[in-house]
Amino acid sequence: MRLSLLDPQGRHSMTDDNIIYVGNKPVMNYVLAVVTQFNNGADEVLIKARGRAISRAVDVAEISRKRFLSEVDVKDIAISTESLSTETGETNVSAIEITVGK
Amino acid sequence: MRLSLLDPQGRHSMTDDNIIYVGNKPVMNYVLAVVTQFNNGADEVLIKARGRAISRAVDVAEISRKRFLSEVDVKDIAISTESLSTETGETNVSAIEITVGK
Repeated sequence: MRLSLLDPQGRHSMTDDNIIYVGNKPVMNYVLAVVTQFNNGADEVLIKARGRAISRAVDVAEISRKRFLSEVDVKDIAISTESLSTETGETNVSAIEITVGK
Repeated sequence: MRLSLLDPQGRHSMTDDNIIYVGNKPVMNYVLAVVTQFNNGADEVLIKARGRAISRAVDVAEISRKRFLSEVDVKDIAISTESLSTETGETNVSAIEITVGK
């Protein structure tokens, strides 16, 4: 669930912007998003994914720090189980959150 | 690369046995392997995977602790990049190591 945090001027706060949701697009799309966040002044970026996209999220973290952001490292990795409502009932899916930072 | 550690009697040591390599088999095969390790007295099990199997390794850790091993938790998660030699040259693949323990 994505919480939209708005500052008094109604803009999205950094807390919101610093999360990259990894899905089924090519891995370099997400790497570019991570690199852009750091170039815009972020100190930490949270890379999140569920299900089969988890492997891609690890690729995003590894490619970002090894190839593009030498001063950035993995700060924390958390895994969890999320419950999704589908047409055929509740189903569980694994999730990952990788925090990369300076 | 799997290092085979043999004790003086030529048997595999616990260090070797406590590693579960997750590949393309059904996820419950690996869950059973993890549960068996703990039932045989292990205090920690290392779940390792590369490439697309990374998502399945997270499933193995989550299903093992949530459904079968209530006293077991995730102790550490590490990601890395491994270099593989293929017919067409060197290629990089992401890897994960999830340590689950009591």
